[in-house]
Amino acid sequence: MSLGGADDPGAPTVLHGLGVGRGVVVAPLAVLRPAHQAPADEPPADDAEAAAQQVVEAFAQVAAALSDQAARATGALAEVLTATAAIAGDAAVAAEAARRVRAGTGPATAVTEAVEGFVAMFTAAGGYLAERVTDLRSVRDRVVARLLGVPEPGLGALSVPSVVAGVDLAPADTAALDLAFVVGLVTEEGGPTGHTAIIAGQLGLPCLVRTPGITAVPDGTVVALDAAAGQVLVDPPADVRARLQQRADAERELARDTAPGATADGHRIDLLANIGTAADADRAAATPVAGSGLFRTEVLFLGRQTAPTLAEQTEVYGSVLRAFGDRKVVVRTLDAGADKPLAFATQADEENPALGVRGYRLVRTLPDLLGTQLAALGAVAAGLDEADRDHLWVMAPMVATPAEARDFATRARAAGITRVGVMVEVPAAALRAREILAEVDFVSLGTNDLAQYTMATDRLRGELADLLDPWQPAVLDLVAATARAGVDLGKPVGVCGESAADPLMALVLTGLGITSLSMSPAAVPAARYAVRRHTLAQCRAIADAALAAGSAPEARAAALALTASEVRTTLTLG
Amino acid sequence: MSLGGADDPGAPTVLHGLGVGRGVVVAPLAVLRPAHQAPADEPPADDAEAAAQQVVEAFAQVAAALSDQAARATGALAEVLTATAAIAGDAAVAAEAARRVRAGTGPATAVTEAVEGFVAMFTAAGGYLAERVTDLRSVRDRVVARLLGVPEPGLGALSVPSVVAGVDLAPADTAALDLAFVVGLVTEEGGPTGHTAIIAGQLGLPCLVRTPGITAVPDGTVVALDAAAGQVLVDPPADVRARLQQRADAERELARDTAPGATADGHRIDLLANIGTAADADRAAATPVAGSGLFRTEVLFLGRQTAPTLAEQTEVYGSVLRAFGDRKVVVRTLDAGADKPLAFATQADEENPALGVRGYRLVRTLPDLLGTQLAALGAVAAGLDEADRDHLWVMAPMVATPAEARDFATRARAAGITRVGVMVEVPAAALRAREILAEVDFVSLGTNDLAQYTMATDRLRGELADLLDPWQPAVLDLVAATARAGVDLGKPVGVCGESAADPLMALVLTGLGITSLSMSPAAVPAARYAVRRHTLAQCRAIADAALAAGSAPEARAAALALTASEVRTTLTLG
Repeated sequence: MSLGGADDPGAPTVLHGLGVGRGVVVAPLAVLRPAHQAPADEPPADDAEAAAQQVVEAFAQVAAALSDQAARATGALAEVLTATAAIAGDAAVAAEAARRVRAGTGPATAVTEAVEGFVAMFTAAGGYLAERVTDLRSVRDRVVARLLGVPEPGLGALSVPSVVAGVDLAPADTAALDLAFVVGLVTEEGGPTGHTAIIAGQLGLPCLVRTPGITAVPDGTVVALDAAAGQVLVDPPADVRARLQQRADAERELARDTAPGATADGHRIDLLANIGTAADADRAAATPVAGSGLFRTEVLFLGRQTAPTLAEQTEVYGSVLRAFGDRKVVVRTLDAGADKPLAFATQADEENPALGVRGYRLVRTLPDLLGTQLAALGAVAAGLDEADRDHLWVMAPMVATPAEARDFATRARAAGITRVGVMVEVPAAALRAREILAEVDFVSLGTNDLAQYTMATDRLRGELADLLDPWQPAVLDLVAATARAGVDLGKPVGVCGESAADPLMALVLTGLGITSLSMSPAAVPAARYAVRRHTLAQCRAIADAALAAGSAPEARAAALALTASEVRTTLTLG
Repeated sequence: MSLGGADDPGAPTVLHGLGVGRGVVVAPLAVLRPAHQAPADEPPADDAEAAAQQVVEAFAQVAAALSDQAARATGALAEVLTATAAIAGDAAVAAEAARRVRAGTGPATAVTEAVEGFVAMFTAAGGYLAERVTDLRSVRDRVVARLLGVPEPGLGALSVPSVVAGVDLAPADTAALDLAFVVGLVTEEGGPTGHTAIIAGQLGLPCLVRTPGITAVPDGTVVALDAAAGQVLVDPPADVRARLQQRADAERELARDTAPGATADGHRIDLLANIGTAADADRAAATPVAGSGLFRTEVLFLGRQTAPTLAEQTEVYGSVLRAFGDRKVVVRTLDAGADKPLAFATQADEENPALGVRGYRLVRTLPDLLGTQLAALGAVAAGLDEADRDHLWVMAPMVATPAEARDFATRARAAGITRVGVMVEVPAAALRAREILAEVDFVSLGTNDLAQYTMATDRLRGELADLLDPWQPAVLDLVAATARAGVDLGKPVGVCGESAADPLMALVLTGLGITSLSMSPAAVPAARYAVRRHTLAQCRAIADAALAAGSAPEARAAALALTASEVRTTLTLG
């Protein structure tokens, strides 16, 4: 990557990546610094006693800095910082590191070894202590950085709204972000359906992944992040900033429209929010969505040593339902396995976890996991008024056959759930959608996984991204077949994969007969705008054109050619 | 597992497994013994000098035993045994082990450590030496067994035709089998499309996989292996043996029929052989098959540090073509990746290799691999008479889109290949078979992988075997769609997955419009017999009944109900 514009010295440097959603933002960059390891050949300190004192001092400084940050933070971030500060301030860890320095180990190595000893102990202890391992390692990285005289890993404290960049953002990195000052995310790696992208969608942040070179841009440089165009402009001139600001204003304008999702001629299509937590539910319920089309319950299970109890689950599901009042909430039962491993539910030795015991298949080995979840949902249903009970929809992920759908429906109905469905994300389920819909009340297409299996291409890899394109005609064929089965049987067929968030795809899906689109709340305004400016007949023509194409780029181009020019311009779909 | 028949003391114990193919055989059992490791806490020898001498002596005994076995073996097995004997006789390895014993290490541990040192050296040296690592470890296991006073791992020398059993058979285990004395294979683990099953099919051996308890049966016990029934009878009474012998005779009778594959009313369906080597080609060409429908070229690439040269490949492909004379041979270009890793072509870090860069996708990263292969095939084609050139068919695996099919066809035709096709094993390729067939001359359905992706269920795992069933209606849907595209465009659509070897499925496939079935040569007689005893209209009715079913067991039962009773009885399809 070159940061100098050799051809045109006046043009800003442009970095290219994969845009997530469509947002645009102009702000200074804050680069997440990587952790430094202790040098492999670190020599013992010349003055071991002085070095041991320095190590103890470094732990104290890290503890003080963390406490300070905790005092200025709120919510979950404040909790994480307080817990980490307590570990840094624990005399036992610092003393063990100092002992090793006095015994002749290099200081950074001594800290690393001392912390790894505690990691082993915490892990063996299990429960709460095992969950503190990440904090221990975070303390190690900060102390080592002080001893080596390099900047601490992570972000400096943000004082202005910033675009945060990194090689990739781990869940721990995003948990540590002070969201009040984050207005965009850019990563060098990651994928359009990975962790960073999902978080960005959830929070409505403009985001770019797979953007080589972004971490080489100096901290504090002003950048313009344009997710729709898939690019970052480094230090853009005033006219470019003004133009992008105009676009940001136009998008805010779209967000003011609160009309129900429907075509220009009144054909209804529900626009729903994807959520993962009760906090997401509160945020989404405050926007004009028709409910939630995908409540990912696995968020409640991740990063724990044991499954949440019946009481815990009942509490969380209940608060999500209450947040949406008389709007529907589609709860997806636990989708563990594959890229979402759980300590208590994942088989470690699968060669191809995406093709293994994941999602609903866990019922074969761990039926209690689903049993408890359905019991919690049943308890929530029992607590609702008769009239509200139908707002609780429950569906199982990774169902492949009518027999599995029937089995799940029997279990869910026995638990007191009145609206039962399954995800269609395995090609077999789409091919046999009619037989599956005969067993349940609704289905919801997970287009990310459906594309993964239909194209036999891993979602987590970038090299084959052209094959994984949701515009692949073969994937559209399966979406169309599923939608057709729903129309024929008069049952709802939703889409809750990423493709629902593409306004051009929203027109295709509407034309195919899909009845609801669930996406990150930030993506709803553009979808609503696009759908409202086309009739159902136009949407059908757009869908037909996409299905008739021979490749993904041709399918998108064919759909675009039939889209209203006003929509193409406003949403910069060109 | 209980070896005593508690309910009926007179009945033989029955072990259940997954049958591969349909064969039946009665013979004594020979159990492959596992290797013993050096005990973790092995103490130093009391008399280190005497123990060191024993170690040197053990190496010499192993070398002598291996030389002896090599002298009695032939072909590849003799070569492997001779090379292994040379390593056991190498003074350097024994001396290094003895040195460690004298230095105070326990004898078995010393042998293990000494061999691992040589493994590291051989691996670093690469080439021929690196390929000897397996032999080194085999010597280690034999020497350690002598020192521990336990039986040597592997099989004792077989002196009578035997059914060989093991937990699982690694490629090295099967390579070491003296085939003259192997009449059947049974494993506790493995899957119906795994290594053991493929070898058994290739050699026409009755085989059962996933048969818990088989290794607990004492060596030498007579067993009756019935692959069609999926069971092993331990020490069966005389009447049972006689009945099974009758069945074996009946199957031999079927094999005498040399009529071309066709329905009772003369609708032609080519019956072809799956092969992996020139030796397979010689064996298969000696049987009444219409050619080879799948020549797996990756066998030539496996277990090597570098790809075979243009000259090597030209030689092997040429001899396969010569073996079949004027019969067609469908060559599949390299299908590396996933469960067939190659040292020079596999990406080690794929989370889901089955969804990764495998098969034709390698052209993105290693185009020369395909280039050399097509050049070798082009050279073979150029050496054929004009009239014979059309017998060389070449197809690429793991093609997902019409664009990939077009790209492959361009490369293959440029190399001088006149009949170009692709495998249909990705659901997207089946869904878009019409567009793909427009780019090539033929397609061949790989039903194992097609089922794997359609059902999102790993071929290598057993827990989800019910989902992976080739009778799953959704999989049949995709086979039917592909066959229909071939009929409409007048182009051949073959099947070369395991399901072609099931005579009941052969009727379904014929009814769907499939034009050729390629399978292990041993499976051809039953398929030929089944097809010849039904008209095309009957096959179509059988196919329709299977497609209309709601589950895999129902699909098979529906097909079976319409099958001629004579065929059901003779082939024990019940």
